[in-house]
Amino acid sequence: MSEQLTGNCLIAQSGGPTSVINSSLAGAITEALNHEAIEEIYGGLNGILGILNENLIDLAAESQQSIRALRHTPGAALGTCRFKLKRPEDYARVIEVFEAHNIRYFFYAGGNDSQDTADKISKLARERGYELRVIGIPKTIDNDLVTTDHTPGYGSVIKYVASTVKEVACDNAGMGQHDLVQVIEVMGRSAGWIAAGAALAKRRDDPSGAPHLIYLPEVAFSPEKYIADVQRVLQKEKYCVVVVGEGLLDSDGNYISTDSTGSDAFGHSQLGGAGDYLRKLVEDNLKIKARSIKLGMAQRAAANCASAVDNDEAFLAGQAAVKAAINGETDKMVTLLRGEGESYVCETGLAPLSEIANGVKLLPENWINEDGVSMSYHFYKYALPLIQGEAAMPFENGVPVHAKLNCEKVQRHLSPHNFE
Amino acid sequence: MSEQLTGNCLIAQSGGPTSVINSSLAGAITEALNHEAIEEIYGGLNGILGILNENLIDLAAESQQSIRALRHTPGAALGTCRFKLKRPEDYARVIEVFEAHNIRYFFYAGGNDSQDTADKISKLARERGYELRVIGIPKTIDNDLVTTDHTPGYGSVIKYVASTVKEVACDNAGMGQHDLVQVIEVMGRSAGWIAAGAALAKRRDDPSGAPHLIYLPEVAFSPEKYIADVQRVLQKEKYCVVVVGEGLLDSDGNYISTDSTGSDAFGHSQLGGAGDYLRKLVEDNLKIKARSIKLGMAQRAAANCASAVDNDEAFLAGQAAVKAAINGETDKMVTLLRGEGESYVCETGLAPLSEIANGVKLLPENWINEDGVSMSYHFYKYALPLIQGEAAMPFENGVPVHAKLNCEKVQRHLSPHNFE
Repeated sequence: MSEQLTGNCLIAQSGGPTSVINSSLAGAITEALNHEAIEEIYGGLNGILGILNENLIDLAAESQQSIRALRHTPGAALGTCRFKLKRPEDYARVIEVFEAHNIRYFFYAGGNDSQDTADKISKLARERGYELRVIGIPKTIDNDLVTTDHTPGYGSVIKYVASTVKEVACDNAGMGQHDLVQVIEVMGRSAGWIAAGAALAKRRDDPSGAPHLIYLPEVAFSPEKYIADVQRVLQKEKYCVVVVGEGLLDSDGNYISTDSTGSDAFGHSQLGGAGDYLRKLVEDNLKIKARSIKLGMAQRAAANCASAVDNDEAFLAGQAAVKAAINGETDKMVTLLRGEGESYVCETGLAPLSEIANGVKLLPENWINEDGVSMSYHFYKYALPLIQGEAAMPFENGVPVHAKLNCEKVQRHLSPHNFE
Repeated sequence: MSEQLTGNCLIAQSGGPTSVINSSLAGAITEALNHEAIEEIYGGLNGILGILNENLIDLAAESQQSIRALRHTPGAALGTCRFKLKRPEDYARVIEVFEAHNIRYFFYAGGNDSQDTADKISKLARERGYELRVIGIPKTIDNDLVTTDHTPGYGSVIKYVASTVKEVACDNAGMGQHDLVQVIEVMGRSAGWIAAGAALAKRRDDPSGAPHLIYLPEVAFSPEKYIADVQRVLQKEKYCVVVVGEGLLDSDGNYISTDSTGSDAFGHSQLGGAGDYLRKLVEDNLKIKARSIKLGMAQRAAANCASAVDNDEAFLAGQAAVKAAINGETDKMVTLLRGEGESYVCETGLAPLSEIANGVKLLPENWINEDGVSMSYHFYKYALPLIQGEAAMPFENGVPVHAKLNCEKVQRHLSPHNFE
């Protein structure tokens, strides 16, 4: 145990949510309650924006039921943001807010952009001689963070996507219609992890099953090859289920889309339309009927079909963040480490924030088969353990029950921040 | 008990499937096994097409596990078709096939088109003096059949849609972004039953919740009113969840869509695109970010989120069809009858096929509030009982397990049918 640092802790969430993001929040709160060094447990509303605005809530005042319900509540219960800290005044303000509320522990759940933000805040605190421990909690459906075997949120999104693909395939297989092409667009901006996960709908011993074709951002898209791929499937099968990641790129590195609408504050293009594009390609070139599904935000909110393994690991990651900070760690993100043995075991580790920030983990090349549209044994071995178990979802009046936090406000000590 | 008619039975499925269509199949098979008058239990592959092609399978030869697994398997396990019997030769062929296989009981699961087909087959058999009992099993997510309180398949699709809306709303509510508009397109060709069902995501005592706006085919769509509706919601809420039925119509009765691609064999227009259209209307007119989800076939295949009440009623409808035929009934469809009391009770009844064929049950006008975009108390009272209970879905390797029938072929007795 390192030197004890007594003070308050602040937990915040950032970026796009996952269906288990609040399980990490529940884990962190639960663990924080175990440590006397942590006096107050605050939540920052809407990530870094809430800190700038001194919008803090008292998480210890929430009921036990609410904390338990967080484990099944999708979306960021504290709110997230995509605001990017840029100006020195903004960074300085974060430290001022921390000082004003004696925040000595800062836990930030997010993807690589968020870990970058946490890293910079930590560095500034050190420069200013303000003692602060900063631990990142990994969170992204995209599974693209480096240094961690996988990210909390990923197992659940691919369990939902694979289950949906398997169910839709039952539907398509039973349609009398021949040559039905069903395109399912899934998320995945910079890497094909989610689209790849659809492969889990297909048992490796059943090569005829759906998804028949998977298009990944890692493989440059060729319309000619795509049409040939679909024709090849339809020579053997009555129907063809195509899964496509929204971040599909052509051979020049441009997004494949019927619809392009600018980019977000981080410079990421806003995608959408790859699925419709692939549907139209089939209709225009093969003159057969195609259908499309766009799961959109439903896939990252489907707590109702979350993986129990993923949910437990998300909780564990929240707990581990608090334990690490109490043990004197800082400037680290919790990582998930897979055991070496044949049966799946997962432990938490730590990695420097600076290593995670803005790194992107792509699918290893040899996890994609030579045909470019299916996943190899390596991927199955990697991903299958992550979707095991069904998180028991409470229902009321026929629909899932979600946590509703009281959000008791912490009194402000500072004047409003000047954003201009 | 009427005069005993001994012979074989044939079960077939038609039209678009539901997530509980095979529960009715399981109910019919289970019940048929109880009656000695029924000698063989055959399934017709791909609806009426399988009958024309003499593509029959021996359902009694399937394993007990397979029949049990049918209760959780979406899509038509026997295959469906959208083939429409038109020529006298086709109708005559059906009777020939029935004669060749001594089919005396015919159970047809489908929507109004299918019940029309069943009605015509029954009439022709009577004309020809061939003793045949024909009972329809209701089946459609659209809930648009007349004479039945509701249809098996409807409760499950709206449970899935309402659950998805509630989950997506958690996601949207947690996004830091203000003025987020989320459009969710659901099925519903001629009536707004499915879009209306999304209302169940919102508790009546929580007027701020999602879905904020529901656009139904029953209410002529006005782009100006829509934009005003969205603005009104965004004055009070940070985000706006819009649910739209694919069959939305403008004031001239034309489908609202960015994309029109012809019509099917029954003259129904192939829809798609209302969601994207509404998303673009917001982006173009309000200059704010909007997102869209298109659940497509996933919604009618989501056995994983099926209603236990619906699943049980689907099974019951299959059983009731067989019981009715054994009792000497014919030319009827099984209906679901709701008890008069305060607590929900459902029994089966029977209605003449000719009444169901091609009738369409619209949402009653007073079930839609005056604002045109939300549902009244009457709808909640009607729909809430239908989504109760969660059908226990078996999972294997992290994904749902589905029945795979052996499909042991019944030997053909006739020469191939001439379709020309």
